[in-house]
Amino acid sequence: MNTPFFKQLTILGVGLIGGSVALALKQAGQVSQVTGAGRNLNTLAEAIKLGAIDQATTMEEAVSTADVVVLATPVGQFPRIMQAIVPHLKPDAVITDVGSTKSDVAAAAREHMGKHLPRFVPAHPIAGAEKSGVSAARADLFLGKHVVLTPLPETSPDAIDIVERLWQTCGAKVSQMTPLMHDQVFAAVSHLPHLLAFALVAELDNRSNAEQLFGYAAGGFRDFTRIAASSPEMWRDISLANKQPLLKELKAYQDQIAYLAAILEQGDGVALEMLFQRASIARNNWNKSSGN
Amino acid sequence: MNTPFFKQLTILGVGLIGGSVALALKQAGQVSQVTGAGRNLNTLAEAIKLGAIDQATTMEEAVSTADVVVLATPVGQFPRIMQAIVPHLKPDAVITDVGSTKSDVAAAAREHMGKHLPRFVPAHPIAGAEKSGVSAARADLFLGKHVVLTPLPETSPDAIDIVERLWQTCGAKVSQMTPLMHDQVFAAVSHLPHLLAFALVAELDNRSNAEQLFGYAAGGFRDFTRIAASSPEMWRDISLANKQPLLKELKAYQDQIAYLAAILEQGDGVALEMLFQRASIARNNWNKSSGN
Repeated sequence: MNTPFFKQLTILGVGLIGGSVALALKQAGQVSQVTGAGRNLNTLAEAIKLGAIDQATTMEEAVSTADVVVLATPVGQFPRIMQAIVPHLKPDAVITDVGSTKSDVAAAAREHMGKHLPRFVPAHPIAGAEKSGVSAARADLFLGKHVVLTPLPETSPDAIDIVERLWQTCGAKVSQMTPLMHDQVFAAVSHLPHLLAFALVAELDNRSNAEQLFGYAAGGFRDFTRIAASSPEMWRDISLANKQPLLKELKAYQDQIAYLAAILEQGDGVALEMLFQRASIARNNWNKSSGN
Repeated sequence: MNTPFFKQLTILGVGLIGGSVALALKQAGQVSQVTGAGRNLNTLAEAIKLGAIDQATTMEEAVSTADVVVLATPVGQFPRIMQAIVPHLKPDAVITDVGSTKSDVAAAAREHMGKHLPRFVPAHPIAGAEKSGVSAARADLFLGKHVVLTPLPETSPDAIDIVERLWQTCGAKVSQMTPLMHDQVFAAVSHLPHLLAFALVAELDNRSNAEQLFGYAAGGFRDFTRIAASSPEMWRDISLANKQPLLKELKAYQDQIAYLAAILEQGDGVALEMLFQRASIARNNWNKSSGN
């Protein structure tokens, strides 16, 4: 067996994503030692038991020997964690994250990473929203999934290469965008649908006949609203962090619904069928091309 | 084995729904003979091969000996079919349908069923939107599913009993509403979500970077937009047939989205989390209670 590429990996926040990164690199034989840190000691004990991490310690100690540090806590904790770890990082350590929004993470890094800023590579793996916690971690979670890197102008090319290699070793398809482009794309294809699903369920739940309505809801409703069961706290943070692109998406969608209501009001069956057909064809094509 | 309750059943339009009704009653040993009729001879031949129907003939002949007639063609064909079959029906034949909208079917029945109106029981089985065609028919399609009967004031109680028995024999949970109440409930929990999903996919597909957007769409998008792959023609007809309740739902949803955009614009994290939490709790409770 070849020598593992990654010597000392440190995961801060060992949940579904952090745990799965560790398991994937271990299964590939590409990491020598994984150290975990986080606020919940039970989680860390479980992560050791599951073989995701080899040991657990404090954040400061965990990063002091790390070649690569993965920030996998909720994004809201990043500024505080960056401040805490910066004094303890090795000079050439590479730091990356797994947050769902990137402009805010880039801004936090610029503010708090100090001389380590060129070694910080913001990243977003597109996987695993339904479950959470290290008990759901899997070595194949990222297999065939997208991971978007959003390096800054200052980011060092060799740090980008190392993070790209980490995700490729996990089986992911790695691409790059600017943080803003990333946030605009995911406002459209992820954040907007979540808000729309939350909005529908909350609106129906607020009615006097909510019980009757939910009683007759079936398969279409089930799929459409599945993401409305997502974490309210996480989606509050994502919404606020990605406020401007998301407001722009909401506006575009409001315009589309206003158009749809207008052609329905006019009884314009041709226009309705054209809109439905455009959607149906695009959705069927996406289904074939994405394997989703 | 007991004598089957249903002697001569006739299915007009032997697709997924019509074929599944026939298979379910046959499997329960509760129908002596099933005759099918429809425009597509290949479909009828396949339905015979699959054992859904025993024989196929013209609509007029098929209904002339029927005790129960099930209209299972697209709703748009109902007026023409009602006119065609009324002169051939036995005096005490019971007629029912499987259309997704009920006020329009009730109106068509009132206009075209003549002296047979009291024997016509409008019905809507809530099942099987994803696939279509008799090849997808299954005896257990309606097991545990809702079927809503929407009798008119004129409808004879014993005709209602017979249709209720038919669906209970298929394993369905049968309830009753007025046609208008039915259309209002399904505007909210079925028709609105379909229109919202069509609208999102059509809007994204219309952008210059559509390919990039769809390229990064993942699991949440997949579930949210699955119903956007539905039949454009069918949903054009449903939308037009249920125009007023659906316009009311679109308006309520537009108000909700405007509220959501306003609290996001204000950066009101508390209000955002409250809305998301209300939705998340309702969706999780529904999931548990519905088994969906």
